[in-house]
Amino acid sequence: MKGIKNIRIKRIEKNNTSEKSDVVIQESPLQIIVAYGEVNNRKKETLSVTMRTPGSDFEMVTGFLFCEGFIQSASDILSMRFIGNPVDITLQENTMLVEIAAHVSFNIENKKRNFLSAASCGFCGKTNADMINQQAFIPLTNTFKINVECLYHLPELLNRSQNLFTQTGGAHAVALINAEGNIIYTREDVGRHNAMDKLVGTMLKKKLLPLNNYIVLFSGRLSYELLQKSLIAGIPIVCAIGAPSSLAIEMAEDNGITLIGFLKNDSFNIYCGAERIIQS
Amino acid sequence: MKGIKNIRIKRIEKNNTSEKSDVVIQESPLQIIVAYGEVNNRKKETLSVTMRTPGSDFEMVTGFLFCEGFIQSASDILSMRFIGNPVDITLQENTMLVEIAAHVSFNIENKKRNFLSAASCGFCGKTNADMINQQAFIPLTNTFKINVECLYHLPELLNRSQNLFTQTGGAHAVALINAEGNIIYTREDVGRHNAMDKLVGTMLKKKLLPLNNYIVLFSGRLSYELLQKSLIAGIPIVCAIGAPSSLAIEMAEDNGITLIGFLKNDSFNIYCGAERIIQS
Repeated sequence: MKGIKNIRIKRIEKNNTSEKSDVVIQESPLQIIVAYGEVNNRKKETLSVTMRTPGSDFEMVTGFLFCEGFIQSASDILSMRFIGNPVDITLQENTMLVEIAAHVSFNIENKKRNFLSAASCGFCGKTNADMINQQAFIPLTNTFKINVECLYHLPELLNRSQNLFTQTGGAHAVALINAEGNIIYTREDVGRHNAMDKLVGTMLKKKLLPLNNYIVLFSGRLSYELLQKSLIAGIPIVCAIGAPSSLAIEMAEDNGITLIGFLKNDSFNIYCGAERIIQS
Repeated sequence: MKGIKNIRIKRIEKNNTSEKSDVVIQESPLQIIVAYGEVNNRKKETLSVTMRTPGSDFEMVTGFLFCEGFIQSASDILSMRFIGNPVDITLQENTMLVEIAAHVSFNIENKKRNFLSAASCGFCGKTNADMINQQAFIPLTNTFKINVECLYHLPELLNRSQNLFTQTGGAHAVALINAEGNIIYTREDVGRHNAMDKLVGTMLKKKLLPLNNYIVLFSGRLSYELLQKSLIAGIPIVCAIGAPSSLAIEMAEDNGITLIGFLKNDSFNIYCGAERIIQS
């Protein structure tokens, strides 16, 4: 099965030692090389090297490029293929070549410069979020609502859908939930931002963005970055089994997102956007 | 208290709603600007912008620069100070100027190029680790040992030392433990790599590296990156309350590190380096 690795371990319980087979979550590097520019003047460059769990790689890269503002739709990508070591299948999948459509203005340096200039306004920045937001976000104003009872069912549903976590105890998960309270997709990865990129990329490829009538549920904690990705995907209700950070809450407040943390089968915290939660 | 933020939340339990005060972990950006080069030809450049929990920032930046191979000792840094917005103390601490000693060869571009060239050998790389290791690591060969009973006490000791987690449920922790099984320092952060940088920086400033007679314990899961930092700091025994990734195990195996996961008060898994664990 993709995403896991079988190993041998020594298991110590009290004073007993045994040798046994075990399964761990796979972590391996993915180098993303982009080819871009006019037909007669194509450039090729390494965009990033990211540590990820293999599986849904094309979706992950699609979601990553979208969330970082490099592409606007899945059709901005002409093709994607693995070009690593052809002898070893595992290593082959460690390098991906992404052909970006010629019409897409794709300037890595410009992107980098914008980031640093946005980031370097620490002196004049009014808020923490000012300092890091490179793009002007459009706050979500839709009136999508969800029932409390529906939320109470989600931890159990997520739990049952976490295949990699069940086997390894080492994977983050993110699930997309529809208005009826059903999980549409669960994506897992050793990195939670990768899991979210996989989910966003899956929906982008299906031309289903923005996700204005969906809920997203994270298996762990909520950082600023995950709220940013949720916002870019247009998701109005963001939930987590764990705790949110201060900046995740600021990001949600500033952008009309309903933020829920410590979700259990009979309780949760609402940090902002309570108007989207219906108590029957 | 530094590192936390007081907020108001809506708490939903079954069908009851209440408003209450709560505490969340602080996440805010830190822009690291380095000034480096000969006295007559100083350059100034943004090295990175990282999301972190304020507190032990000077230690974190020291540890980061060391773990990334930019500096060899704390004395390679002449001074560090916050230079952000002088009106708002929170924002002031979001930008740090680090003066690097003139004798230090500090080439950001070179570092970046090396990384991409190391990373771009996906085709010829023999292993995943080959693909990402920029520096030649020296495997640990020391014979430091620890008793099983000592390990069983660590989860409880760590738990009691996690001040930010106790209040917020949103912080990762890493603790440094000496040969007697006592915690010397615990460092917490919204990002576990930051927590480790804080710990390594603390010890580097005290001129106590390499940490050949210490154990490190992480509150969560173990990724490749955390093993890399442990190795650079010379720590022979790495433990975690959670699961390790496949690449964390490879990294430990290749470099003589004892790796322990799922540490509880009466059991744990040894992934490699069992010779350092004494069963009485």
